[in-house]
Amino acid sequence: MAEPIDFYFDFSSPYGYFASRRIDELAARHGRGVEWRPILLGLVFERTGGQPLPAVPLKGDYARRDMLRSARYLGLPFVFPEKFPFGSTAAVRCYYWLRDGDAARARDYARAVYAACFGRGEDISAPDTAIALAARAGADEAALRVALTEPSVKERPRVETTAAIERGVFGSPYFIIDGEPFWGHDRLDQMERWLSSGPY
Amino acid sequence: MAEPIDFYFDFSSPYGYFASRRIDELAARHGRGVEWRPILLGLVFERTGGQPLPAVPLKGDYARRDMLRSARYLGLPFVFPEKFPFGSTAAVRCYYWLRDGDAARARDYARAVYAACFGRGEDISAPDTAIALAARAGADEAALRVALTEPSVKERPRVETTAAIERGVFGSPYFIIDGEPFWGHDRLDQMERWLSSGPY
Repeated sequence: MAEPIDFYFDFSSPYGYFASRRIDELAARHGRGVEWRPILLGLVFERTGGQPLPAVPLKGDYARRDMLRSARYLGLPFVFPEKFPFGSTAAVRCYYWLRDGDAARARDYARAVYAACFGRGEDISAPDTAIALAARAGADEAALRVALTEPSVKERPRVETTAAIERGVFGSPYFIIDGEPFWGHDRLDQMERWLSSGPY
Repeated sequence: MAEPIDFYFDFSSPYGYFASRRIDELAARHGRGVEWRPILLGLVFERTGGQPLPAVPLKGDYARRDMLRSARYLGLPFVFPEKFPFGSTAAVRCYYWLRDGDAARARDYARAVYAACFGRGEDISAPDTAIALAARAGADEAALRVALTEPSVKERPRVETTAAIERGVFGSPYFIIDGEPFWGHDRLDQMERWLSSGPY
């Protein structure tokens, strides 16, 4: 079987959310799996000098409008959380803890997080919220609470983000297919051609 | 007849070039004209704190790859000029001088400039080059050379760019359809739907 597609995203990224709703089906059409890899764009921006979109003059206003319109264009439920962008460190920690045990459950969890923060506009930044969503996805809540006190679990978001930066990741969503990088939910069409006809 | 689509672009923008090869046909399918409006992104970035893509860590490397791949994906001739990004003030001055007399000729000129710098990778930054391209597009070269010494012609790129910023323009290509803004050649699909089905 061909290598899975690497799917890097930030839980606080609406464009990552849009991509998350489409990438598995796209990959499956071409016999591919998808490795979901949440990261923290805040750490990426420390390296690249980037800023969250809402903070950029002119572009910030446009981005908000574009996100709402893109959701309507794609037919996806989308509600802006009051606090945006928001922290997602707790959710990323829970994700990788789940991922080490069960990839399918971790993916269900990631989907549940995105459904909460952008499908319904809820605040998912608090650790208790991130944990409650994990419990609902089938996690052992007591074990998770213990794990979240361990240094390796706490450091995991930084470790994963640093590894992503090493591979060139600078935004969300960001995909790598057999070494070829694609940035943005608006590159899914190019990815589709890449997967169906091979490199071009 | 419906209002024309405003098409803002920088001659030094590959994504603007890609859009320039597709926008007139897209607009015509929906009974629209297109008002081509070259601007200087350098002046925009003074206001927004933006940077030319090649200067941004990680993103710059990706952008170069994405531009080449996008050209292949779209089936467009594309050669990277050795100097990139490059100045296009002279070309913008020539464009608006032509535009004041003959919109069709000005558009032919803009197409010729893009064909030179990205279709063939030529350096179009020198005034003599910009003027030679205008002459080939049918401009009165002697009259153009005189005009280019006039303050109003010299200031025109700044005037047009300032007016664009007032309308929210922060990148290239940037389109406005009946007040609705679309940024990027990868929004042509959303524009197509907007034009065919109305606002969504």
